[in-house]
Amino acid sequence: MEFNSGRVFLFRVPEGEELVTFITKFAEEKGIKAAVVSAIGSLKSPRIGYFDEERGEYKIIKLEGTYELVSLMGNISLKEGGPFAHLHAALGDSEGRLYGGHLFEGEVFVAEVFVQELIGEPLERKPRKNGLSLWDAITRRTPGNLSLQPSP
Amino acid sequence: MEFNSGRVFLFRVPEGEELVTFITKFAEEKGIKAAVVSAIGSLKSPRIGYFDEERGEYKIIKLEGTYELVSLMGNISLKEGGPFAHLHAALGDSEGRLYGGHLFEGEVFVAEVFVQELIGEPLERKPRKNGLSLWDAITRRTPGNLSLQPSP
Amino acid sequence: MEFNSGRVFLFRVPEGEELVTFITKFAEEKGIKAAVVSAIGSLKSPRIGYFDEERGEYKIIKLEGTYELVSLMGNISLKEGGPFAHLHAALGDSEGRLYGGHLFEGEVFVAEVFVQELIGEPLERKPRKNGLSLWDAITRRTPGNLSLQPSP
Repeated sequence: MEFNSGRVFLFRVPEGEELVTFITKFAEEKGIKAAVVSAIGSLKSPRIGYFDEERGEYKIIKLEGTYELVSLMGNISLKEGGPFAHLHAALGDSEGRLYGGHLFEGEVFVAEVFVQELIGEPLERKPRKNGLSLWDAITRRTPGNLSLQPSP
Repeated sequence: MEFNSGRVFLFRVPEGEELVTFITKFAEEKGIKAAVVSAIGSLKSPRIGYFDEERGEYKIIKLEGTYELVSLMGNISLKEGGPFAHLHAALGDSEGRLYGGHLFEGEVFVAEVFVQELIGEPLERKPRKNGLSLWDAITRRTPGNLSLQPSP
Repeated sequence: MEFNSGRVFLFRVPEGEELVTFITKFAEEKGIKAAVVSAIGSLKSPRIGYFDEERGEYKIIKLEGTYELVSLMGNISLKEGGPFAHLHAALGDSEGRLYGGHLFEGEVFVAEVFVQELIGEPLERKPRKNGLSLWDAITRRTPGNLSLQPSP
C-alpha cells in the first residue's frame, strides 16, 4: 500500500498498436510489477466497458471511428503472476462530446504514455465474489488506523 | 509552490465507504498535508457540483445509480488546519456517456486510489470573495519571475 | 524515454490568465524541458480541438460560458527549441455533461496545476506526415526489446 517511487517513463506508442496490450507488454519487458499510468492521444475503434453489478460482468460498448483520448488513467499490478493494466479512458468525438469507461482496447493513432513505477510489496488482483479481480482493500479497523485486510 | 516528493500510496478503498471522506481521513491518519490524488473505479449515487459564479455557490447535481469512475483527479492541502481533499470526477453511465464536475460525495463500489505526498511550505486554502476557498495564486510580477502573491 | 524525477510544483494560476500560455511560460521561466502536467479547476470560453485525420488538421470547437475543468492531463516537451505543452481537457457544463479534446486555450477562473519535471535526454516534437508534431515512437524491434526508432 505504501511504495517507493521507481523508474519513470514517458514515451509515444507507435501508430497501429493496440494500447492496452502495448502497455502490458511494456510492463512485462521492463519488469514493472506496480505502477500508475496516464496518457493522452487519439484512439481508433475503442472498446469500453461498464460493469453491470447484477450480472457480475462488463457490458461492452463499441465506439466507431477516431476519438481524442482526453484522459487515460489507471495502474499496473499483478494478476496471475504477471503485470496487468487496469485503465479507464475518456474519449472525445468530433463534436467534443465525451464517452468513457473501462478501456478494453483501442487502436493507437497517437498515445503519449506516462508510467511511474512503484516498488514495494506485491500488489495482487484476486477474483472476488462480485465478478471483479481486485486487490485486498485497506480498512479502518480502529479510528486512526488504516490497515490491509482481505475482503470477500 | 515547489515541493519535495514524499510518500506514495496506491490502495483500494473498501466497498461502501464514501470516497471523499475516506480520502480525507486517510490523509489525517497518515499526517499528509499536501498531495496530488488520482483514482479510477466505480461509484454509486455520486453527487457532483458545478460552481455558479453569479450565486457564488455550487449547483449540486445528483446522479442516480452506478457510474464508472473514469477519472478522479485532485489534491490535498490544508483548510482550517486540517487536510482537505479537492477532487474532480468524470463518471460514465451504462451507455458510456460521461458526466462530471466537483466531487462532493460518492459511495465506493470500487476505488483504486493513488496518493503522491508533497513535502514543503504549508499550502492553505483561504476563503475568497468569489465564494471559493483557494490557495494564494502565483503571479508574474515581472517577465521571467513567477512569485507567490495573495489574491482577493 | 526513461527519465529521472525532477522538481515538483503544485500551484494556483491567477484568475484571468490563459491556461495553456501560462503553463508554457511557467515551464520557460523554470527551465523545464520535460514534465507531466495535471490540473483541475474551472475555465471560461475554452477552445478545444478534434484532430481530423483526413484533413491533417484540428477541427476547433468553441465552448461558450464557464466549465468545470474536470481533468487536465498532458505533458511538456521540446518543440522548436522551447518547452511546448500538449494538454487534453475534460470540461463539465452546468448540467454535469462533459465535453473535451485537445485544449487550445481557456481563460482561468480557477486552475490548480501539478507539474512533475522529468530529467533526461531531450524529448522533442518533430513535424510528421500526418500533420501532427510528435516524438519518435518506441517500437518493439524484437520480442522483449522496446527501443526508440524514428517514425515517418
